[in-house]
Parts: sequence; structure tokens; C-alpha cells
Amino acid sequence: MAQKPSIPKGTRDFTPAEMARRNYIFDTIRTVFKLHGFQQIETPAMENLSTLMGKYGEEGDKLLFKILNSGDFLRGADPQLIQSAIAGDDSAKLAAKICEKGLRYDLTVPFARFVVMHRNDLSFPFKRFQIQPVWRADRPQKGRYREFYQCDADVIGSDSLINEIELLQLIDDVFSRLGIRITIKLNNRKVLAGIAELVGAPDKIVDITVAIDKIDKIGLDNVKAELGERGLSAEAIDRITPLITLSGSNAERLASLEEMLASSETGLKGVSELREVMAGTEALGLCADLELDVSLARGLNYYTGTIIEVKARDVEIGSITGGGRYDNLTGVFGLPGVSGVGISFGADRIYDVLNTLNLYPEGIEGAAKVMFTNFGPKEAARSLQIIKKLRESGIPAELYPDAAKMKKQMGRADSLGIPFVAIIGETELQNGTVTLKNMTTGEQSEISTEKLTEALG
Amino acid sequence: MAQKPSIPKGTRDFTPAEMARRNYIFDTIRTVFKLHGFQQIETPAMENLSTLMGKYGEEGDKLLFKILNSGDFLRGADPQLIQSAIAGDDSAKLAAKICEKGLRYDLTVPFARFVVMHRNDLSFPFKRFQIQPVWRADRPQKGRYREFYQCDADVIGSDSLINEIELLQLIDDVFSRLGIRITIKLNNRKVLAGIAELVGAPDKIVDITVAIDKIDKIGLDNVKAELGERGLSAEAIDRITPLITLSGSNAERLASLEEMLASSETGLKGVSELREVMAGTEALGLCADLELDVSLARGLNYYTGTIIEVKARDVEIGSITGGGRYDNLTGVFGLPGVSGVGISFGADRIYDVLNTLNLYPEGIEGAAKVMFTNFGPKEAARSLQIIKKLRESGIPAELYPDAAKMKKQMGRADSLGIPFVAIIGETELQNGTVTLKNMTTGEQSEISTEKLTEALG
Repeated sequence: MAQKPSIPKGTRDFTPAEMARRNYIFDTIRTVFKLHGFQQIETPAMENLSTLMGKYGEEGDKLLFKILNSGDFLRGADPQLIQSAIAGDDSAKLAAKICEKGLRYDLTVPFARFVVMHRNDLSFPFKRFQIQPVWRADRPQKGRYREFYQCDADVIGSDSLINEIELLQLIDDVFSRLGIRITIKLNNRKVLAGIAELVGAPDKIVDITVAIDKIDKIGLDNVKAELGERGLSAEAIDRITPLITLSGSNAERLASLEEMLASSETGLKGVSELREVMAGTEALGLCADLELDVSLARGLNYYTGTIIEVKARDVEIGSITGGGRYDNLTGVFGLPGVSGVGISFGADRIYDVLNTLNLYPEGIEGAAKVMFTNFGPKEAARSLQIIKKLRESGIPAELYPDAAKMKKQMGRADSLGIPFVAIIGETELQNGTVTLKNMTTGEQSEISTEKLTEALG
Repeated sequence: MAQKPSIPKGTRDFTPAEMARRNYIFDTIRTVFKLHGFQQIETPAMENLSTLMGKYGEEGDKLLFKILNSGDFLRGADPQLIQSAIAGDDSAKLAAKICEKGLRYDLTVPFARFVVMHRNDLSFPFKRFQIQPVWRADRPQKGRYREFYQCDADVIGSDSLINEIELLQLIDDVFSRLGIRITIKLNNRKVLAGIAELVGAPDKIVDITVAIDKIDKIGLDNVKAELGERGLSAEAIDRITPLITLSGSNAERLASLEEMLASSETGLKGVSELREVMAGTEALGLCADLELDVSLARGLNYYTGTIIEVKARDVEIGSITGGGRYDNLTGVFGLPGVSGVGISFGADRIYDVLNTLNLYPEGIEGAAKVMFTNFGPKEAARSLQIIKKLRESGIPAELYPDAAKMKKQMGRADSLGIPFVAIIGETELQNGTVTLKNMTTGEQSEISTEKLTEALG
């Protein structure tokens, strides 16, 4: 019995047309990474679970795809643990016994592991990029997949803010090339720490940023009410009111922030870092809008300085790129005190944005530039000779492999978007020529084979 | 406590230097695939186990990496099956219950599944290429990994032998570009079937090919003795003696084969196919040696016509590329009668060959072309302006992010193989110049910033 084939939910096949579009994105990002001096690495899809577990929080641990040990994986396992698992309890504990390996969940933890394992062979600061898939056992939904690509660039081993300035240039360069208008939002973890000091409630920082983020939608009074509901004292709310209503240019916002955080050494350090990054960036010029946004609170668990987020201006979609500075990424693997800063491009969302705005350039499809029709053995043999020469000149060319009906052959060129069809029939064979048909205009003309390379070049 | 990190056995990290070499191989193969009109697809790393199981033989099923179901994977499982598994029996049966998905084992079965699922959107003949990793739970050893890349090109939906001729051209093109001298060995499954008919022992075909392969090492008498030991009758051995001693040019070998297989319709069809493929190939010309080899018996389970194998002439290593024609790849997924032919490049072995022969071109390392030293904020700011322009001209450039000791900064350029260092100190800042140092020759000169792009171009 034949099976009706399917693929696991949350995963995707990519057809040639989709690959062409995806490669356009990856190639653009890769080109810019290289122009900025980043060097590529790759790590295995499988990591030891001891490397992955505990790095993404409890929820993250659950989302790891685990690989069953080979052979007799259950031999000698603890009977009680098995009884629990049959009852649906403590499944994770048994899983940890019968699975040693898991699929990588992101590129950051494998990168940290890589740096520690290869530290003696690396030149620091180490600027690496990595473009590989990651896997998460998330509930699949629109725009969220169980296998997706991340495109990361990190500088590790330097705490200079020049790295931040350079990464903002890199982001700007990528999206300029892709033709996507963006706003880069900037914040600093130390500013958020200063705010927490100000209100005397470090555990409320997420509540505060969530509330601030709503100012445009619900207005000041409602934001204040919400902060009260979330447990902030009236005094604390008063203290951060200037933060909620922060407005004006980036320079004005920085000045307000500085005044407000005057009593917090950490907070002021954050303001000073933001100022330096913004000044350096503005001196170099940027196509993107650059916006100080104190409600930006991504990666609070690991970012320690700059926080970066990129939004597309012309499409309603979540952040399409994000990043920040971390001071102790490799500490957990035994290499403390190494500061780094990195960004991650979300290829799937960028793909959605480009599709929505229809921003792909022409001619990325990647099929052959010319297809030769096939009238039979003699004509095919002659065609293959010419095709060989075309390929040597860098022109992608192919022969229809069967002497099928002409309509079928032309149909192939048409459906693949092959722009030219070359016809060698009896006449052309005798004349030493080829009839070249432009599939866009429909024009065709008989030319000498010597002229063909030129006509297709 | 910090963990000492490691990676799963049989897997590898790739450093920037290794990535540069690997990308050189992949880029070369990809370029040639495209020149020949093949279009790229990608399939998910995970497939449903129902897609994978039973496609690679019993041994292959054992080598599949299986992914544990999420959540309470053991809830409600058959207690007896569990008892067996604890005792180390029937583990595979329990594995099948608690794992729905597995990692792909090759690119061929996912391709067949892809073709069946997308058949209505594809234009046949469909020429696809695919470059992705595969995973096998094999015992790791030198040159054998648990994660490795395959680079496959297949034409499906055409039984024309032009496809074989074209694929041989493609192989020749790839290895010419890489500078590897090769021998392409050719056989045909139908010739092997004819030989089996001749000796009346279809199950002995592998024994026969293995014995024939030893003729140069052990001589005719010993080959005959071995065939006898393997259960061939004296009469059968007499009949295939011409096969064992087959020699001369390909044309002479074909003539001998034809004579020997005169009584087998299938065998003669195989000879005729070989003759057509070889004639077509010789008419186009080939850098590689092309050799008819009747002992070539790869892929007997699925190949039905042409069989191809490529050996490096200057390195002792197994086959570095292989392929052949199959008549029913997609039948198991409900699409019978689709003929195809394909080849697979073994990237890891090609990597070993290039390393052994030291055939990599210069300048593939992929670090920046120029590194700017950093003397402090003013100099750095000026450098960033210039670097921005260089990148716009397509020149990979970077700034050392910290104002570190000059020895340390120069050390970075040296260890990364960055060919030029640009120095902007107080003097250069005043003069509007930059001092450019050639790291290979040691020469340095002060030039205007306008001249820099040209000097580095």
C-alpha cells in the first residue's frame, strides 16, 4: 500500500521559487556580514542536552526537541520513574534518562559553547556570524514554525561601544539593500535598572515597561491606574511619570532621562552609553529612524547593556531583528568575564515583509537563462555542444531531455520563467545557426551560434 | 559549577578557516548545478518516521535518529512493551510508539516525498538540487560522521539518456573547477541483470562483482576459486570468465560484453544504454577518464539503469561521488512509473581530497580585506567614516574596536590573515591621509583617503 506522505506539523518544504526568495535574503545578510568583517562558523544540529538544559528557562526546556538514545534506551531504567511517566508524571525526568542529545534551540548557546571550546584557537575580539536552522517544539501557528533559520552576528571579547555603533550600521545596511524601511529602537538595560532603583521595585520592571508601552493607546491616566493595579505605590508612579510621557527628540529624551535618574549611578551609566552609541551612529549617518524607547525590555534575562529592536515601518509585524549586549554569555561554560554584543535577523519575518511589500528584484528565480528545445538525436547533440560553451561563459543553460511535443517543451520554459528558448531544427542545423526566442516579448530571430553568447550575456 | 562543554560524538564544529574551505566546495558545486539548470529545494530536518522507516533496509532503520514525542510521551503505553524494553528486548517497537519523527537519513527519500506532495506545482522533467545535512547513528570513525552534508542533483520525469550524458558533464565540470583529477566509472544495472541470467543465479550478483573487482590483485585463478567457494558452478564460472578478464578500450569492452550477453535481452539493453551514454559523452569531450567497470554494483536495491561512481586519481579514498538511474523512486509514496537519474557529491570526502592535495585557491579565508587600527575616539570616528565608504565599494573592512596596544591590534590582523592594515594616527588625521601597510610584504605608505579604495580594489 502506498503511503500518503506528509511532513511534521510546523515544518516546511521550500520549493525552488521560495528558495530563490529565501536565498536572496540570506545572500544579502551574508554579504553584509562579510563586508563588516564577520567570519562564518557552523555548529552541529545536535547538542548534548547538558549544554542546552537550563539555558532558556523552564518553558524553554520543555520546548527542546530531544533525541532518543540509540539501541536499548530503556534497559535498566528506574522502574519507579517509568511508572510515573506511564501515569503522565515526571515525564521530563525520564526523558532526561533516555535522551542525551537535543536539537539546538537557538544559535547563542551553541556559540557560547563554541567560544569556550575553541578559545585557544580564536583571535579576540572574535566576530562570528552563523546562519543555521533552530528547532522549537512550540505550538505551530501562523508565522511560528518548529524549524526556522536564525542569522546571527556577534562580537565577543570587546566592551567597546564602537561594536554597538558598527552593528547599527550593519542593520541599516542590510535593510537598505533589501529596500525595507525600518525604525531601530534602542534602550539600555542599565537605564531599566536605574528605573527599578528609582521606584524601589526591581521585580516590577517588566510591568513598568509594559505599561509605558501603552501610553499612546490608553493615555496617561490609564497607564497610571494600571501601574497602581500592578502594585506600584503612588509615590513610585509619580517618580516615573516623566518616563511615561517621555517625548521630543532623542537628545531631549536623553536629557530628561538623565535628570530623572540623577540619583542612580547605574541609570546614569546607561544614559551615557545610549548617548555615545547614538552620537556615533548619527555621525556616520543612517537610513533608518533611530529611536530611544525606554519601554523596550527584550532579553532582560541576559542583556546587560544596549538593547536593540528593529520594526518594519510599512508592515504590521513583530520585531524583525533584535539584539543587545551581554556581559557573561560564556560564564556558564567556565569562561567568565567575556563581554559581547550581537544581533539576530529573523529571516522568516523578513520574508513575510518582503512578500507583503513585493520587494524582490527581478531575475532571482534561478532557473536556466535559456532552454534548448529537442527535435531529436542530431539536433540534441548539436545543442549540447553549444550549451557546453554557454555554461563555460557562465550562462545557465539546459536542453529539454526528450523530443516531446513542442507545446510541452515551451510550456516548461514558460512555467519555470526561463527567459529565452533556443531552437535548433533541421534548418538551423544546416545553416549552423540557432533561432532564439525571447519569451517575454515573443520576438524571435535566427542568429549564428557565435552570436548566441553575446545575445544572452 | 561551570560545565566543561563538549559536543556529541560524531559531530563537528566548523571554525571560520574550515567554513571557508567548505564554502569553497559548496559554492563550486552550487554554481555548476545552476549552470546546468538545476533548481534548489530544501526539506525539513525532521521527517515523520513513517516516511523514513523501511526505506533504508533493516540496518538503516536502526541508524535513524528518532525524536522523542513532546510532553507525556509514555502515558498509556503498553506495559508489556515497556517491560520488554527494560529487559533490552524489542526496544525498537517501543521507540516507534514514543517517537513520531526522525532526522533525515539522506536527501533521496525526502526528495521523493517532496515530488509526490508537490507534483501538481512542479514542471516535469523536474531538475532539483539540494545541499543539506543528513544524520546517521553510525559508529563514528575516521572520515565517518553522524552529521554530514550531501549535495544531490536529480532529474525526475524523463527517461532520456541525455540526462545521464548531462550529469557526466556536470561531474566533469565540478571536479575540473576543483582541480581534482578523477576517473568516472560507469556500469548499468541491466548488464548486471544479464550476467545474473547468464549464470542462472540472480542472488550471486554481488559475489560476482566483488570477485571480479579483485582480478588485478589476486589473478584469474584465484578469482575463479573464490567464485567456486561462493557457490558458482564450474559452468557458470566458465561463462563469465570473459567478464573477469574484460580489458581494452571501452569500445572493446562493450563489444565483448555484447557478445557474452547475446542471449539476454535485458543484458543487451544495458550494453546499448552504456554505448549511447559513452558515445554522447565522448562527443562532448571530458577532462575525466571514463571507464566501463562491470564490477561496479552500488545501489543495487534501487538503481535500475546507469550506475555512476567517481574516484579521485591522486588520493586513496573511497568513491567521492556516485549516482544512477532509478525507475520507481516515488512509487512507495503513491506515484508510480516516474523515472529519474541523480548524483550525490560527498562533500566530506572531497574536503579530505582537497586538503590532502592542498588544492584550495588563495584568498578564500573570508576575513576582512583591511583592518583599521584604533588609537582613540577621534581616530576611530574618522576610520569609521572611511570604512563605511569602503564597504559601499564592496571591500570588507573593519575597525579594531578597542584602543588596545598596537602589538595586540596587529596580531589580530596577522592571525586572521587580513592582508592590509590601515593606520590613522594624529599625523594622518591632520593630513587627511591613511597609512596603508601590506601585511605580506611589510611595505607601508601614506596615501590620501581617496586613493584607498583603489589601493585595496
